[in-house]
Amino acid sequence: MAKSTAKSPAGISTGLIGNAVFAQSGGPTAVINSSMAGGVLEAFKQRKLIKTVYGAKNGILGVLQEELFDFGKEKLDDVKGLRVTPAAAAGSCRYKVKTEADYARVIEVFQAHNIRYFFYAGGNDSMDTADKVARLARDRNYEMCVMGIPKTIDNDLAHTDHCPGFGSVAKYNATMIMEAGKDTEALYTTDTTTVQEVMGRNAGWIAASSGLAARDGEDSPHLIYVPEIPVSLNQMADQVRECLKRIGRCFVVVCEGCKNEKGEYLSEIGGEFGKDAFGHKQLGGVGDFVATFIEKEIGVKARRNKAGTVQRSGMHWASKTDADEAFACGQQAVREAARGTTGQMVTLVRKSNTPYTCTTGLAKLSDVANGESLLPRDFMNESGTGMSKKFRAYLAPLVRGEVKVNMGPDGLPVYVRLKRKLVSKKCGEWKK
Amino acid sequence: MAKSTAKSPAGISTGLIGNAVFAQSGGPTAVINSSMAGGVLEAFKQRKLIKTVYGAKNGILGVLQEELFDFGKEKLDDVKGLRVTPAAAAGSCRYKVKTEADYARVIEVFQAHNIRYFFYAGGNDSMDTADKVARLARDRNYEMCVMGIPKTIDNDLAHTDHCPGFGSVAKYNATMIMEAGKDTEALYTTDTTTVQEVMGRNAGWIAASSGLAARDGEDSPHLIYVPEIPVSLNQMADQVRECLKRIGRCFVVVCEGCKNEKGEYLSEIGGEFGKDAFGHKQLGGVGDFVATFIEKEIGVKARRNKAGTVQRSGMHWASKTDADEAFACGQQAVREAARGTTGQMVTLVRKSNTPYTCTTGLAKLSDVANGESLLPRDFMNESGTGMSKKFRAYLAPLVRGEVKVNMGPDGLPVYVRLKRKLVSKKCGEWKK
Repeated sequence: MAKSTAKSPAGISTGLIGNAVFAQSGGPTAVINSSMAGGVLEAFKQRKLIKTVYGAKNGILGVLQEELFDFGKEKLDDVKGLRVTPAAAAGSCRYKVKTEADYARVIEVFQAHNIRYFFYAGGNDSMDTADKVARLARDRNYEMCVMGIPKTIDNDLAHTDHCPGFGSVAKYNATMIMEAGKDTEALYTTDTTTVQEVMGRNAGWIAASSGLAARDGEDSPHLIYVPEIPVSLNQMADQVRECLKRIGRCFVVVCEGCKNEKGEYLSEIGGEFGKDAFGHKQLGGVGDFVATFIEKEIGVKARRNKAGTVQRSGMHWASKTDADEAFACGQQAVREAARGTTGQMVTLVRKSNTPYTCTTGLAKLSDVANGESLLPRDFMNESGTGMSKKFRAYLAPLVRGEVKVNMGPDGLPVYVRLKRKLVSKKCGEWKK
Repeated sequence: MAKSTAKSPAGISTGLIGNAVFAQSGGPTAVINSSMAGGVLEAFKQRKLIKTVYGAKNGILGVLQEELFDFGKEKLDDVKGLRVTPAAAAGSCRYKVKTEADYARVIEVFQAHNIRYFFYAGGNDSMDTADKVARLARDRNYEMCVMGIPKTIDNDLAHTDHCPGFGSVAKYNATMIMEAGKDTEALYTTDTTTVQEVMGRNAGWIAASSGLAARDGEDSPHLIYVPEIPVSLNQMADQVRECLKRIGRCFVVVCEGCKNEKGEYLSEIGGEFGKDAFGHKQLGGVGDFVATFIEKEIGVKARRNKAGTVQRSGMHWASKTDADEAFACGQQAVREAARGTTGQMVTLVRKSNTPYTCTTGLAKLSDVANGESLLPRDFMNESGTGMSKKFRAYLAPLVRGEVKVNMGPDGLPVYVRLKRKLVSKKCGEWKK
């Protein structure tokens, strides 16, 4: 470790020498690997400071279980190929670090492997974890830089204009819905509906973004329901009926977290519409619930589409803007760490909309951890069931451009699978 | 009408002059419009024979209801744009012509509008309809050419190597499953499964084709179930357990028409796994059934993806080979009709596999109507749960290449919506 006495504004010795760990957290996205590629390739360039670049297998669990692999042992082409590989190639997890013992274990593993740089890609829970790791390291006088890399399809991180992952899921869902909307339009000869369930537990960003497909009143989707704007079943039925009266079909988008006027999840309000095959109330089946409700209440056919994990892993139709920004966020996290920044997440800062220009900024991990960005009311139209012009202007630049994936001779994409050969352990077993 | 006494081998006066109708039938595909574009553009070239090129709004229903529109009144760019527009731009229907009165009505409408060329794109039911129209016209001494254009995602038409529409749904589903498979692989930290429901009532072509994504034993999908190979629930549970034991995750593809060892649809066998929200048995919910079964029987999490109509309308990821062949089928149908061929469907004839070359042929409508092409047993591997090498070799050329769709400044595809301004009616109302 460098003995320089100069310190960065964050109190880190300038020229801190050691190893780095990259970890991925939470639900995969189309572009979280692009961030990792940006970060790892940049870390390879910082040879004076960063000696070995590790990946943690399955996120923070990989740190806790001391399951680290060396990116230097992966093929360079594979590392580069991460830029156009969906999901989380290092592996992700949903494990939430909570106990003092777990945090202490993280520092123990970092010390054992001389990890001085920790890059954590994830949502606000992960930024909270990263923040606590940074604090504990400081408390224990273990000098290290902890940087957050934003990642969430939900677009709900505070202090950033938008989140890497969102543009791609928006582009892909809107395209799927545009196309399935054409299908509904093609085949109906009497009143018919299609219900598409999309992801989004708390925030309606994903559902609302599908409205980009509706360039005119004939286009799907015709009705979008988001958690921020509760809807009573009566209202919904009226809105579907009105749409059927107008154009003979209705394409409905609902997100997982849609609520009624009492604030109850539609998928949980029970009754005959909200039960799974066992008669249990079930969250996640909101599309089935709404389709069944429409069929029963209005008496028209309702098709059910639920792309599920397909929507967040659609690299073949990812937004180039999104993938490039994700890459830049990873890159920038390393550049900032190399100059002694710690306890911060890289943010995206929109400089101008026409032409679209965007740069990176920084936000404190603790600020991001405690914030949540919900869909603003004026991003929806007056009735609350469609996208407003303001949201359209915000969103369009984020979905522009198509990622060019590597194609195999069999006509399908070729994605990377890392070898992830684990390095020797130096600590005892993790006591969970 | 031409007074030439020369006849084609099919008994049609050579140089038959009149109007044409194009109609689309059954479930939309990514490329049925490509066939229509091929046909209509070719018909425009046959000015000496074909005077006005009509479309029937919503398939045979448009003929019965005398709802015809003039392709000459559509923007030429829109007609060309059909080549890269999914679903059925003229409109489709599932109406089955059965009664004598209906067939007579078809001929009545054709005579009123001097329709001498009828091009019907659809599956075997539609070829049956086209055949009966051709026969009735001949019986009534109304000279006309009736040509079938193959269309089905199900790939179950006899007398053709493969069907336009299949390559695209295969490419798209395999890609979705490859990507969602990466998602499953990324996030699992304990045993986990994903169940993807795909289309296919009788034939397992679509489900089986997703196996193209599995280039090695780690890749998804790990288990594919097709109607041609029944599976008992015990077998299925054993196969899922075995896969979990081997790699800790299992990606299962099931198609709508999967059956158990007794020949019963999995989605209909009842019990606690096979009911909809009302406790009714339901076909179409086979994915939910299998996922629920796995969760209950094996005790692991099972994610549910059901792309639904999204899978058959995915022009943004359509196979270029498929779209080009669909276009060629439409073109060829018109060329054949122009030389007096009738009562035939255009087929695809594979000439060689390496390099892939394919040309068109002809099959009698009646032969196609009465045939059905199921998935050959040797297109699946020994266990019956994955694709064989033979099928891989058959399929790969069909999914090669990507269609380049027109993109808007908002980052989404721009698809065509025809004006479909109906021409004046000449017949009385259709008595259904």
